[in-house]
Amino acid sequence: MFIHRRDVQIQWGDCDPANIVYYPRYFAMFDDATSVMFEAAGFSKQDIVRRYGLVGIPMVDTRAKFYIPSTYGDWITIESRIESIKRSSFDVTHKVFKGEALALEGFETRVLVGRDPADPDKLKSAPFPEEMRTKFLGD
Amino acid sequence: MFIHRRDVQIQWGDCDPANIVYYPRYFAMFDDATSVMFEAAGFSKQDIVRRYGLVGIPMVDTRAKFYIPSTYGDWITIESRIESIKRSSFDVTHKVFKGEALALEGFETRVLVGRDPADPDKLKSAPFPEEMRTKFLGD
Amino acid sequence: MFIHRRDVQIQWGDCDPANIVYYPRYFAMFDDATSVMFEAAGFSKQDIVRRYGLVGIPMVDTRAKFYIPSTYGDWITIESRIESIKRSSFDVTHKVFKGEALALEGFETRVLVGRDPADPDKLKSAPFPEEMRTKFLGD
Amino acid sequence: MFIHRRDVQIQWGDCDPANIVYYPRYFAMFDDATSVMFEAAGFSKQDIVRRYGLVGIPMVDTRAKFYIPSTYGDWITIESRIESIKRSSFDVTHKVFKGEALALEGFETRVLVGRDPADPDKLKSAPFPEEMRTKFLGD
Repeated sequence: MFIHRRDVQIQWGDCDPANIVYYPRYFAMFDDATSVMFEAAGFSKQDIVRRYGLVGIPMVDTRAKFYIPSTYGDWITIESRIESIKRSSFDVTHKVFKGEALALEGFETRVLVGRDPADPDKLKSAPFPEEMRTKFLGD
Repeated sequence: MFIHRRDVQIQWGDCDPANIVYYPRYFAMFDDATSVMFEAAGFSKQDIVRRYGLVGIPMVDTRAKFYIPSTYGDWITIESRIESIKRSSFDVTHKVFKGEALALEGFETRVLVGRDPADPDKLKSAPFPEEMRTKFLGD
Repeated sequence: MFIHRRDVQIQWGDCDPANIVYYPRYFAMFDDATSVMFEAAGFSKQDIVRRYGLVGIPMVDTRAKFYIPSTYGDWITIESRIESIKRSSFDVTHKVFKGEALALEGFETRVLVGRDPADPDKLKSAPFPEEMRTKFLGD
Repeated sequence: MFIHRRDVQIQWGDCDPANIVYYPRYFAMFDDATSVMFEAAGFSKQDIVRRYGLVGIPMVDTRAKFYIPSTYGDWITIESRIESIKRSSFDVTHKVFKGEALALEGFETRVLVGRDPADPDKLKSAPFPEEMRTKFLGD
């Protein structure tokens, strides 16, 4: 299984008047983490769009659970992996560590979407490319 | 039960290169919707902070399910309510309608947090004020 | 001259640990205000893109001066106008009032951009449509 | 003179439907760059707040000029420096390079702000600490 780790320093603008990360910012960090994980695996977002003719990887369902708050200056590590892949949808988890402690978790179900060959103005789900599946889940 | 409706027009900057709302933006819209719902019920965020000595209403667990995408110029209606209240935590749901259609749903578990009287540098959960409970859930 | 006013309530997530609006958020509010001004004048962003074949209205130069801070719960009024129009570029100003007081000002120079007919992969500046010029500046 | 360089990869969520960076995002990147520059110089935002009793470094006047657009996946280098320091205000410039090319520039005038000793509820400008001045501008 392909696991990606990314260190992120919380910035002033990520935080709210309670002095902790404004939680929608975590979803942006998770979205970045998923993109960077794909890029690290050899499939950049530009590749996904151009090589496979995909339009994007829209979110179907996402969730986050928050255990320990962070503030500006703190460093967190986002550990991301694809847990499972169906035909065109797949599940990503992000575990965020602050030192040794699990600070929050993110869960995503996304789907690959491309243009409908019969009507390029329409979008439809696209199968997860085999080489990507092999890379992320191993054999 | 207190239900709050808020019309929001999707803006250019809410959208990503796939021409649809960048989903972390929905969490910001939900956070705004919860604040505005409290204000509409007579308890503005400033009140919550000042009158009840609370520091904030941090998120414990949040989830969103996405059914229909929206793009810039679209109008959506966010219908928010508090589903249930425990001692200091409570559940909020947001149903987002695009016309008649349910476009997405958001779920939040939040907790009221104040300063620990024994140590003002520490935060601890605070009981949900009775007058707020009555207002949101009725009797 | 066409002047557009838009009331905006500052939200919790707009603010930083100093309890005031995180200033990049003002630029997003200004961008929204420009879009909404165009829409109010009869030219929505969707129109601009579809009817006139434009790709967008990218920013060339923008500035903001900050006089009075605001915090969550505050209401501000953004007063926007197009000050001048050249062939394809134009200047927008935003005056933000908090009550009677001028709280900040924004300045934008933008340019209309479309696809190059000779090479649709390339972008080039596009002339400001005459009917839009008349609407914004009068005769 | 202290110069700080920071490499940033543009992410999907930084971009708008025209497929280029949504310009308010650059102001957030500039704000981060200024914070990280202070930290690299030995004065983290936490230090500034705690050690010097400051509340923040609010923006007085900021401007950006955009020359070359960037899209997701692109790497940019933000080169930041303090150009000049007055009693409590100072000017920061950011030059953003895409490869060798100057892609955009940012200009900031900020002011150090602390609590008024005579009335802790009031804010007032605070002098730029001498050791910080020496570090940023040399002797």
